[in-house]
Amino acid sequence: MNKRRIIMDCDPGHDDAIAIILAAARPELEILGITTVSGNAEIEKTTINALKICDLVSLTDVIVSKGASGPLVRVRENAPGIHGDTGLDGPELPEPSRSWSGEHGADTIIRLVKESEEPVTILPTGPLTNVALALAKAPEIKDNIEEIVLMGGGTFGNWTPTAEFNIWADPEAAKKVFDSRIPITVMGLDITHQAMATQAVIDQVNQIDNKVAKIVGELLEFFVATNKEMFELDGGPVHDVLTVAYCVAPELFKMKEVNIVVETKGEFTAGTTLVDLHGVTGREKNAKFGMELDVEGFWNLMFGSLKKY
Amino acid sequence: MNKRRIIMDCDPGHDDAIAIILAAARPELEILGITTVSGNAEIEKTTINALKICDLVSLTDVIVSKGASGPLVRVRENAPGIHGDTGLDGPELPEPSRSWSGEHGADTIIRLVKESEEPVTILPTGPLTNVALALAKAPEIKDNIEEIVLMGGGTFGNWTPTAEFNIWADPEAAKKVFDSRIPITVMGLDITHQAMATQAVIDQVNQIDNKVAKIVGELLEFFVATNKEMFELDGGPVHDVLTVAYCVAPELFKMKEVNIVVETKGEFTAGTTLVDLHGVTGREKNAKFGMELDVEGFWNLMFGSLKKY
Amino acid sequence: MNKRRIIMDCDPGHDDAIAIILAAARPELEILGITTVSGNAEIEKTTINALKICDLVSLTDVIVSKGASGPLVRVRENAPGIHGDTGLDGPELPEPSRSWSGEHGADTIIRLVKESEEPVTILPTGPLTNVALALAKAPEIKDNIEEIVLMGGGTFGNWTPTAEFNIWADPEAAKKVFDSRIPITVMGLDITHQAMATQAVIDQVNQIDNKVAKIVGELLEFFVATNKEMFELDGGPVHDVLTVAYCVAPELFKMKEVNIVVETKGEFTAGTTLVDLHGVTGREKNAKFGMELDVEGFWNLMFGSLKKY
Amino acid sequence: MNKRRIIMDCDPGHDDAIAIILAAARPELEILGITTVSGNAEIEKTTINALKICDLVSLTDVIVSKGASGPLVRVRENAPGIHGDTGLDGPELPEPSRSWSGEHGADTIIRLVKESEEPVTILPTGPLTNVALALAKAPEIKDNIEEIVLMGGGTFGNWTPTAEFNIWADPEAAKKVFDSRIPITVMGLDITHQAMATQAVIDQVNQIDNKVAKIVGELLEFFVATNKEMFELDGGPVHDVLTVAYCVAPELFKMKEVNIVVETKGEFTAGTTLVDLHGVTGREKNAKFGMELDVEGFWNLMFGSLKKY
Repeated sequence: MNKRRIIMDCDPGHDDAIAIILAAARPELEILGITTVSGNAEIEKTTINALKICDLVSLTDVIVSKGASGPLVRVRENAPGIHGDTGLDGPELPEPSRSWSGEHGADTIIRLVKESEEPVTILPTGPLTNVALALAKAPEIKDNIEEIVLMGGGTFGNWTPTAEFNIWADPEAAKKVFDSRIPITVMGLDITHQAMATQAVIDQVNQIDNKVAKIVGELLEFFVATNKEMFELDGGPVHDVLTVAYCVAPELFKMKEVNIVVETKGEFTAGTTLVDLHGVTGREKNAKFGMELDVEGFWNLMFGSLKKY
Repeated sequence: MNKRRIIMDCDPGHDDAIAIILAAARPELEILGITTVSGNAEIEKTTINALKICDLVSLTDVIVSKGASGPLVRVRENAPGIHGDTGLDGPELPEPSRSWSGEHGADTIIRLVKESEEPVTILPTGPLTNVALALAKAPEIKDNIEEIVLMGGGTFGNWTPTAEFNIWADPEAAKKVFDSRIPITVMGLDITHQAMATQAVIDQVNQIDNKVAKIVGELLEFFVATNKEMFELDGGPVHDVLTVAYCVAPELFKMKEVNIVVETKGEFTAGTTLVDLHGVTGREKNAKFGMELDVEGFWNLMFGSLKKY
Repeated sequence: MNKRRIIMDCDPGHDDAIAIILAAARPELEILGITTVSGNAEIEKTTINALKICDLVSLTDVIVSKGASGPLVRVRENAPGIHGDTGLDGPELPEPSRSWSGEHGADTIIRLVKESEEPVTILPTGPLTNVALALAKAPEIKDNIEEIVLMGGGTFGNWTPTAEFNIWADPEAAKKVFDSRIPITVMGLDITHQAMATQAVIDQVNQIDNKVAKIVGELLEFFVATNKEMFELDGGPVHDVLTVAYCVAPELFKMKEVNIVVETKGEFTAGTTLVDLHGVTGREKNAKFGMELDVEGFWNLMFGSLKKY
Repeated sequence: MNKRRIIMDCDPGHDDAIAIILAAARPELEILGITTVSGNAEIEKTTINALKICDLVSLTDVIVSKGASGPLVRVRENAPGIHGDTGLDGPELPEPSRSWSGEHGADTIIRLVKESEEPVTILPTGPLTNVALALAKAPEIKDNIEEIVLMGGGTFGNWTPTAEFNIWADPEAAKKVFDSRIPITVMGLDITHQAMATQAVIDQVNQIDNKVAKIVGELLEFFVATNKEMFELDGGPVHDVLTVAYCVAPELFKMKEVNIVVETKGEFTAGTTLVDLHGVTGREKNAKFGMELDVEGFWNLMFGSLKKY
């Protein structure tokens, strides 16, 4: 089987961590590298968290590169209310067995894409700063990027009434990515809120008898609690995990081809994604947007993958 | 019974027309005046349409004043794709029996509010230009306005991916109204899309045996067809009618107190209402926002009122 | 001689007051009306000041109408640092002999323009709110407006680094005026800073032996002092007076036809006028912009006019 | 003597070229590296031009690194109207003797700053993309940057009525630099227009009998002609050269400490620098702004340096 080559650009973060755990379990994927970005937590924390998760799932051969410590232009803001002080509160994880690479995350993206003999898919699950920096430094990598499957945006917001956190945290970077003409696949809040980790989900995870599943259960417990408190949700939407699931099992996803632009100006709306579901803008389609998830299929994929550990 | 005194500021428009028809049938309301604005169609058309509907429902004593022919600052745009060339395509209605008053709509609002011994409720169902002009000329009228119950905005858009037509058509006017500290009640797309005129609704209207109901049936036929074509909807949401229904039967409406601000800048987002459902912005609550409609109750109110003609 | 018919739309304000004084002395002009606006001071103050100046120069037959108490959309801000608490600090002027008309300033503009058999020139020397309201209510008056000769804007700012006070105070109104296709003549800071009242100027005014000149001297003393303190200027630029002088003696002014647009968005630049002196934007010319003043001629016009009192 | 260590980040461009020529002649300066950026011309052209000029002045040991091929976020635009098709039209220069380094310009800046034992001064004379990328990737370099002496901005514009080309071409990058809290020294149009190469200047250059001076004469001839045509100027302002002159002879410059912010939003004003000369904004001072040039001293520095070749 030809494995799909992916780079995970992330800010773990509970759902980023679970995304890595899912990816590492899947034979359909080859993880070329992991790059980190400031987002859910500060860059040092998200990088250490990525390394800890790599240890947990034995991804010790995969390069982990520390990326941008803040957005392209704006002032940095993180999300401790959702992810806790460490960015990955909940489970006790040992200190990482290694340090990050000496290479900047954006440079790792550039190098891995250039070196790959086959087109690469990038899975950004944090602010798009690293991807934008990579495109700014080496626009020619576009030719060897198969697809960018990202978590971000939606037709409604969570961080502001109209903006989702990842896009809001670095709107200029997001604009650069959405305007790049690279094929973009978007897991926005519309579909990620369908992947809601409830107590029933946690119970099923907890019945899987291995260390990784135990950690995932603890991650979900924490994440569900903060999502309830902050967003009045009935569970924790495991947003970032959908990017991996889509690469493995696209048949679980009902997508729609649309135009999406990112607002970078505005008094109140910076970071808003305008998802033109009904074609009212007349702008050219530039993204596939996640509409509907086969929820049962998604969780079964998740449970089945966890059982492999 | 103490009637609620209302001014209808509208741009008929199919749903505006039905809103007037509902209001005229209700003993709970006293229509002090009708003012027109450019919106669904050009100002001459919306004014003639208002006069025609007044004739239809014998509102011949109520002043009809022509208001703003375009937005406060921006370039005018109308919506012929939804309402047809006349702004009220569908039924054949006789030419109006009278002309509009010599007074500008904004001045009519100012005068009626000032003259009223009891506070007045304004029901804007078009762009908010007239209300903004009235507030600009005579800010002191705020003290005698009980409430502004308006159709506009929502957590999603129809004219752009994030903006609803009425607010989009004059964002600066909308900003002025939302920032005015007058009590604002908002029938946004979230709730007006629950009041969907389907074929079943039209059938029931058509079973009511009077001239007004017949006209309403014809209005709905046209409106449902254009909404299907333009917005891929399963019917025609009778947006504006909800403002009247709310004044008559607020118990049919589940509302939420929220902060709403209007974006007037932005590259893509002017006219977007940011409805802070979860209090993430920390901004002070300034509006009641329509969340859930008792759909059966609403249509029963509608049918019952039409039977009175 | 055919007198030029003018409406003075102002916010006195020291330089507005002197503009009225100059206009009242000139046989070339017929003042149809004076309308006031919030700007240099709150609307009640600018209106009382206008009435006081009318008494001073016996303009007791000219209608004075109170206009907008704040900008079209934004929050009101005044300029007490320049004009003092009353908006006209300095001389002692008796309470006005009459009150303002019952008509709103914007309505006075509309009515006077419509009633005039010959085209009217409007001289706005404050924020453009009244003119914008008049255009919003009655766009048809454009056909009988000969020219709008306004004080505002420039290639540099005074209230912000790039914005002049009058435009900054109501950018949306200014945008409406500049986009109206009415012939616009602009006395911006570039030329008004050439009409600098220095001690030498004040000395010459003080040598004119009549009550009006005495008051003008006192106005200038105050105005020069606050301009020195606030803007580090070597005198007080009598900005608004240039609009009147231009109507009387255009030969004193070197003008350039340019495109001017008004920024209403921006994080820092709202109210900035973009004066395209070198045609770099390719936008159509819509204004005459004041480049160079015959300074001696200007002051001689001023002194000569004051001597007539 | 302790030489001042500089990195020249440029887009040659006639005035950039002369800036390099001046710097190479000065014993007070040590050029650590030259990085290029898209600006006056496309990145390949500006890089080749930089290499050609290095050959001309025997800077063959200095690293030349190709940097950003376009702005951080926006669409690229160049300035062929001023600099011709090659970006350096006028003289015939041989093909460069070497290629650029394999390192990206932003990485060269990062590395040189980090490696230097003494603080480094950066002289950006093009759009600020490379500097912004360097700050985005390695914010810690701020600690070893003595000063950024840049050509850009001003109280008026050349590319738009309010924006100068370098800042306009990448406003987001400029914002990042101006908000960085690194000491910024700004040679804006206010002072660079004082360094006007006229025919008299060219004549003096032509009297210097060496190859380099001959090339400078030819560069100026071309540059003066296009500036006359495009901006109606009486010569060619050698903007970029002032950054080098300032590092060598700061006594020729009258500077003012001010606050400068960069507009990145706005309908018409993106790329405008708001230079708060009179402290009206109350914002903290963050830049030294060039007010007045000792014009004779400047040209004597130029002529004297050219004679050394």
